[in-house]
Amino acid sequence: MQSKEKLSILKIGGKLLADEEQLKEMLEVFINQKGRKILVHGGGNRANELIKALGIEPKMINGRRITDEPTLEIVTMVYAGSLNKSLVARLQAMGCPAIGLSGADANVILAHKRVVKDIDYGFAGDVDAVNVTALQHLLAGNLVPVCCAITHDGKGQLLNTNADTIASSLAVALAPHFQVSLQYSFERPGVLKDPADDNSVITSLNKPLYQQYKEEGIITDGMIPKLDNAFAGLEAGVNEVVIGSPAAMSRGQATVIQL
Amino acid sequence: MQSKEKLSILKIGGKLLADEEQLKEMLEVFINQKGRKILVHGGGNRANELIKALGIEPKMINGRRITDEPTLEIVTMVYAGSLNKSLVARLQAMGCPAIGLSGADANVILAHKRVVKDIDYGFAGDVDAVNVTALQHLLAGNLVPVCCAITHDGKGQLLNTNADTIASSLAVALAPHFQVSLQYSFERPGVLKDPADDNSVITSLNKPLYQQYKEEGIITDGMIPKLDNAFAGLEAGVNEVVIGSPAAMSRGQATVIQL
Repeated sequence: MQSKEKLSILKIGGKLLADEEQLKEMLEVFINQKGRKILVHGGGNRANELIKALGIEPKMINGRRITDEPTLEIVTMVYAGSLNKSLVARLQAMGCPAIGLSGADANVILAHKRVVKDIDYGFAGDVDAVNVTALQHLLAGNLVPVCCAITHDGKGQLLNTNADTIASSLAVALAPHFQVSLQYSFERPGVLKDPADDNSVITSLNKPLYQQYKEEGIITDGMIPKLDNAFAGLEAGVNEVVIGSPAAMSRGQATVIQL
Repeated sequence: MQSKEKLSILKIGGKLLADEEQLKEMLEVFINQKGRKILVHGGGNRANELIKALGIEPKMINGRRITDEPTLEIVTMVYAGSLNKSLVARLQAMGCPAIGLSGADANVILAHKRVVKDIDYGFAGDVDAVNVTALQHLLAGNLVPVCCAITHDGKGQLLNTNADTIASSLAVALAPHFQVSLQYSFERPGVLKDPADDNSVITSLNKPLYQQYKEEGIITDGMIPKLDNAFAGLEAGVNEVVIGSPAAMSRGQATVIQL
């Protein structure tokens, strides 16, 4: 059996997008990786600034955005427009053949409007399907997809979708075809044993160790949903999940998670 | 010699984008054409509305926009973001495998910042090169590029570029590989003998006839630069240029221009 080609899927968090130095370092780490690549980016602050500048009341419930119609227009403008195209132009200038995509483009990510239970999240989309054929075609043309957090429902409606979910959906869908490294970059160096000490990165984590750290109270609260998602991806075929800062990833000192 | 595959490049003008009924008709005509397809769209009024809503003074000289930095961000958000993605989602809903592109995406259109002579147009881009290989790859994957009027300079700078110019640059660059029909849709049925009479469409025009109509004063002023550009495209290898409204195109009664 021929070994599968390597594919790195890197998600850049909103805070990194706003930090010029860290963003530069992250993009350099990204383009210098071997094999195929996909970048996924979140939103950053620009959407909120614009919502305020246009006199729209930002609606949040439990820290999650309620996407009404004017908000959807703004996040589409910022995520798929200014932010996505700036990243693409910048990657092109670095010699990386980037191509910006929303989920509507080439029908790459199909979603449905979140079903209303207790809370109506508005035009929030939950992912249904990834168009593997289209992505394979783009990758085969040596293109580097840069995916923003906008999807569509196939009936003409754009939807606002969590960027972490987009990254993991792409990773799982492409895992049968590539050896996928799913990478979440953020401002901390990795999963820490001591949240107050950036030198306490757990550089290697697997399922038994994760259980142990949870039982010992070393890994708590905020990291648990992120890591549960990471292990769900690994169980669905993703080869590894990497969590860390651009600097830690660059030095190979971020957290690497395998089953 | 094998005959070249047909490629339709349709440019939708700003006024049509704002007219739901005409836009719907135009998209239907577009997707029902045989062969490969590329859509090019202008801006519409949304960018101006947003410029005003954000308290920016729109700068125009001789009817042309001066693209300063805040204006560039807004046109990028609207053209490449909300407008492009709405069109893509809508085409996808109609069964057309659309993929939205700025000139930065896959380096499809490389431009340079317009050289300042009498007027500084700011971040306005004049087209230098079309990435034919990338477009051929997308078309070969049965994708339908939807190009907005944003380009880049290859050094990380996005630029605002005239949509008519984008359409004709694409047509000329692709003419060696396809039998190109370059179509300009607008609100009038075609090139008119009598500007006051929509039933006076010149359905077929060639170079000798164009000379004659100009000498007779039948074709004047506003239409001359458009038609000069059309003939320049034909002389550079484009097979035909079609000018007209969605309804006229749909009935085959628009103006068809060949050498």
